[in-house]
Formats: sequence, C-alpha cells, structure tokens
Amino acid sequence: MRKVFNFSAGPAMLPEEVLRQAQQEMLDWHGTGMSMMELGHRGAEFKEVAEQTAADLRELMAIPKNYHVLFVAGGASTQFAMVPLNLYGKIKTADYIDTGIWSKKAIAEARRYGDVHIAAAVQTRDGLAFIPPQDMWALREEAAYIHYTPNETIEGLEFHWVPKTATIPLVADMTSTILSRVINVHDYGIIYAGAQKNLGPAGINVVILREDLLADALPCTPTLYQYKIYVEHGSFYNTPPTYCWYMMGLVLAWVKRQGGVSYFATLSQRKAAKLYNYLDNHRGFYITRIHPECRSQMNVVFDLLNEELRSVFLSAAEAAGLTNLKGHRIIGGLRASIYNAMPEAGVDTLIEFMQYFLQRHG
Amino acid sequence: MRKVFNFSAGPAMLPEEVLRQAQQEMLDWHGTGMSMMELGHRGAEFKEVAEQTAADLRELMAIPKNYHVLFVAGGASTQFAMVPLNLYGKIKTADYIDTGIWSKKAIAEARRYGDVHIAAAVQTRDGLAFIPPQDMWALREEAAYIHYTPNETIEGLEFHWVPKTATIPLVADMTSTILSRVINVHDYGIIYAGAQKNLGPAGINVVILREDLLADALPCTPTLYQYKIYVEHGSFYNTPPTYCWYMMGLVLAWVKRQGGVSYFATLSQRKAAKLYNYLDNHRGFYITRIHPECRSQMNVVFDLLNEELRSVFLSAAEAAGLTNLKGHRIIGGLRASIYNAMPEAGVDTLIEFMQYFLQRHG
Repeated sequence: MRKVFNFSAGPAMLPEEVLRQAQQEMLDWHGTGMSMMELGHRGAEFKEVAEQTAADLRELMAIPKNYHVLFVAGGASTQFAMVPLNLYGKIKTADYIDTGIWSKKAIAEARRYGDVHIAAAVQTRDGLAFIPPQDMWALREEAAYIHYTPNETIEGLEFHWVPKTATIPLVADMTSTILSRVINVHDYGIIYAGAQKNLGPAGINVVILREDLLADALPCTPTLYQYKIYVEHGSFYNTPPTYCWYMMGLVLAWVKRQGGVSYFATLSQRKAAKLYNYLDNHRGFYITRIHPECRSQMNVVFDLLNEELRSVFLSAAEAAGLTNLKGHRIIGGLRASIYNAMPEAGVDTLIEFMQYFLQRHG
Repeated sequence: MRKVFNFSAGPAMLPEEVLRQAQQEMLDWHGTGMSMMELGHRGAEFKEVAEQTAADLRELMAIPKNYHVLFVAGGASTQFAMVPLNLYGKIKTADYIDTGIWSKKAIAEARRYGDVHIAAAVQTRDGLAFIPPQDMWALREEAAYIHYTPNETIEGLEFHWVPKTATIPLVADMTSTILSRVINVHDYGIIYAGAQKNLGPAGINVVILREDLLADALPCTPTLYQYKIYVEHGSFYNTPPTYCWYMMGLVLAWVKRQGGVSYFATLSQRKAAKLYNYLDNHRGFYITRIHPECRSQMNVVFDLLNEELRSVFLSAAEAAGLTNLKGHRIIGGLRASIYNAMPEAGVDTLIEFMQYFLQRHG
C-alpha cells in the first residue's frame, strides 16, 4: 500500500500495479535482457507493445474501424495547433466553445491560422459557473469543425452531455476525461488527449481521427504536425517516445483488468459524488463555485470559506499523506484531481481529513 | 553484469547503473512516496531535477552563459523544422552540407520554408565515402545559417573537424555524437540532439542556442516550435516529457561520475579504433566503405564480403548476446553502434565473436 495519495492534476498518480510492473521490467523486458527504453522502435519487441497499446485503446473505447489511432510526441498543446492546421482546409474558420483556460489556449492557437468564432462561453447561473445548453449556442452553418473541452481541469467544469452536430465534425480535447466515462466515438470527428492524467506519463498524446477528415494540412505545417504522416507511417515516421508509449500500454492493460471504461465510469461517479456530497453538506465551511449540472468528476475544485485557513489546510493535508491539493496557480483555491488511478480509499481518506479539519477549525 | 550487449543505433543501450537507479526510485522518488512520473512539472521536486539536468549539461559541455539550453518534446526531427522556422528570418535561405540520410531529412524540411543551398555533399575517394574538406565547399556570403550533421548514424560517417564559419551561425545535429568528444560550444550557433543515443530515452531533445539568434519565428510557426516560447518559459510552457527529462538527468550524472566528456572522448576513440583495426586487418572477409579520415566513432558500419553470410552472422551474434547488429533498413549491411553506454567489454566481445565467425566461415 502506497503511503501517499497524490491529488495532482497532472502529471498525476499512476496505478501502483503499473509502476511495480515497470519497475520489475526495467532492466529486462520479457527476457530480452534489455529495458524497454533500450529497444529500437522498429524492432519486433516495441512493435508488439505499440500495436497492443493501440488495440487495447480501440477495445476499451470501442473505436470504430473508420477511425485512425495516432500516437504523437508531446502533450495536448500540440493538438491545439495540429487540429486547425489539419482541419481548416480552405474554409479556415471553426467554432469553439469557451468553457475555461484550456479552451482559451486552444482558441488562441487556432486563431493564429484562421478565424475562430466563439459559439458559446461559460456563464453564471445562481452565482455558479455554468455551461450553457446547446440551444443557447450560436453555431454556424459553415465551419471546418466545432471544438470543445469536455472537462476543464483548472476550473473543475465538465460536460455531462455531448454536443449534437449535424455534418460539422466535433473535436474534443479529452485529456482529463478520457476513459473515465463511456462515450460513443461516432459522435466525434477527432478526440485527442495528452497522456498525463488518465493514460500514462507526460510526453505522448493520442489522436482518434475519423478517416474522412484526413486531408492536406495547411502548406506551412511542419511534417510532424501533419496527421497524414502519422497515418502513412503508423506513428513511426520518426522515433516515437517509446517508453511513454509502453507505459500507456501498461495503464491500458490495467484499465482492462479492472473492468474497462464502464467500471471506471461507475467508480468516477461514486468518487466524485462522495466529495461533492460532503462539500454540499458542509457549506458553511467549504465552498464550490461550479453549478451541480456541470461539476467535474475528475477535478473537484473547492475552497475554504475562510481563505486564510488554506495554507493550514494544505500543510495538514500534506502531513497526512494527501498531496497536491493546491488549486491551479491561475485561479487559486483547492483542487482534488481524482483520475482513474486514484483509489476510492484516497477519496475516503480525503473526506475524513476534511471532516477532521472542519472539526478543528470550523 | 547484463547478459546482452545491445548495438542498436537508437533507442540505444543505457548505462546499467542508470537503469538500476530508475528501477529503485520507480515507486518512491527521494522519499516523496511518488514516482517521478507522478510528480507535477511545476512542483519543487521536478523543478529540482529539471534544473540539475540543465546545470549538468552546461558543466559537461562547458556551455557559455550566452547560450540557452532548451528541452523540447520529440526527437531531432522536430528540430529539422524548428531550425529554419526560427532562423530563416527575412533571408529565408540557408546552406546545408549533405553527408547522408539524416542531412537529407533536415534539408527536405528546411526546403519547405525557404531556399536551401547544398554547399557540399559526400564524395567518393579511393572508392570510399568521403567528406570533402571545407576548401571544397561552396558556402555563400549570405545565408541565415550553415547546417551540418557531425555524425551520420546510418552511413557511419563522422566529421573529425569543425567547419569554420565567419559570421554565419553554424547549426549542428549532434544527436549521435553529443558527449562523445570534447567540442567548443562557441563554434556553434545552435547544437541540437535527440536523447535516444547518448542522453537518455526517446521522447525529448535538447537545443543549445546562442542568445543573439533568438528572433521572431516565421508567422506560421506553431507556438511549441518557437524557441522564444521555450526561453521565456524555461521549457515549461506546457507539460514537458518529465520522465524522459529525469532519465536524461540520471544519464548526465553518470557521465559526470565516469569522468565527463574527456573520459568518453578517450574511451570512444579506443573502442572505435579497436573495431576499425580489426576490420582493416581482416579485409578479405569483412569490409568497410568509409574513408579512414571520416569513420564514425559512434556507428561502425561494415559488412561481410560474402553477403550471403550476413543472416548467419546476425543469428549467431544474437545467440551470443550481441544484438541489433543489422544495418539500417535503407542501406543494409551491418552496424555496431557504440555510444557512451556501450562498455569497452562489449566491443571486445564483439571482436572476439567476429574472429570466431571468421574462423568458422572464412
């Protein structure tokens, strides 16, 4: 049993079982006498790992055959540029939904290559942050794609519904929600995700791309930013981040062993509900600023009514083995990120601590 | 003692000591109760690792203060685009030296953004591949920079001298030679290197950039391809590949413990000389196609005079624990990559095997 529950928003906690396996295989992967880090990317060993990882992601998410699965070095910020560069085509305009800081980063990058229309933005309802329903959105008839961020890691805001788009492809940054709920890949044109929350260590991102969207990128697009190159070379145009890819493979195998996405969907709901229920029942001491209809199941953002207690809370939590509960540097407050690798016991321990803290300082 | 000597060209062998340390720290880095993979990139722990890595590289290479050290996700192919995008400026033309397949890849990418002039290309002398001396180069008076590849991993061709440039900055792809010889960073405008040969696992690359070269990139440059962004944010604009960075740190600390770059320079010379001497002394059976003046100390490319024996050689070597001796898929033949992490005992064992093989099949 690990001595620390790490509530970091990412790079985040990884399953203990996965780390133990990586540890055990570090100097000798499957009897090769070599570490996975030392194996050539074009050798049979890494190829096996790479293909199994892709197959497991396909199985877990029920990715249809007409979607490509690409592995790209770097994080989701890479996709902020790759999406417009590859999808703008001749239209050079797209609709974006602005629900927070990650949306804004995607928007800023897309604006560098064309026209971005903000079809909807986060609002306030009953004094709480609220994602407006789609009938309030100003989507356009013509746009290369519609981009949204199903979960905003920093603010702790999540969509519990999927936008309906007719013919315009829907693009989703699922970095912080992938594999935490059952989705229908058919609803999307592109799903992308950096690994460092629910998939593995930082350094790799995954792109799930509907094949009819594969087109020529804008002429200025660097070779390694072209989806076509990844499709044509099976993500092996140049040396991929092999160890990150391998670690993602270990995480996906673990997700399968636990019971797949539906298992984690139920678990995530339960973990988040426990925390939000506790917060709701202790409003005189703790606060949340997100409307109940769009609270994140992955990043529970909250605060103490008495802000002066925040640093006391953080040190006491740290001392109790509950780490990285500090909110994002831009918005402050407190945040508990509870991705798939956070055991339910971590959430229970956090609630016990919050109750103890309330009793001492409330 | 490891049971295999891995002669892979990259991802390549790593020091056993480094792998053991990574193994030992996998679940608990320095008493934090967390793996380095799980630590947030903005936390004090990773910051310490990141800064120490940069400081060690500065110390090992004696990098002057007027050079930035940047850490970028992905491999050297990323730099094939970043160099022209950031250095072309208004001139939009550069001189390239074409010594092999990696040069050609850099040239092809640079051509996408401007005009590339091939100032020199590999030649044949006495029937062997030969890098022409600088007095035979057609360098131009005006060029944004001069790019060359000090070591061609695939062909096994290496510069044993540094081009002299007056005011035009010299850019070098040192992926496969960095830390294997003493260089004077002052001779260069930019040095870049993917990690997976002498620095660590695949997934990160290093850029050493003279500060006066920092300028506005071409307008179409993705944010993460702009050197300025890395300088302004200390390579922390977005989540960096933290575990790859940490592994590089372990490798650099190991290089220091062994005696630094001068130690590896001597060792590399000795390792390469042993192999080339053996090849020269057994020319009726083994062959090399590289002129003695430009033989690579890192990638010893050779072949059997009787090509039909090649697969027998490879299987017998594999059985003897000498792996990945197959030449690159594009040029065939045999190749022994002997980066810093390859112990001299690996080279000695390979020579013993080659002698045994010659006696059986010669």
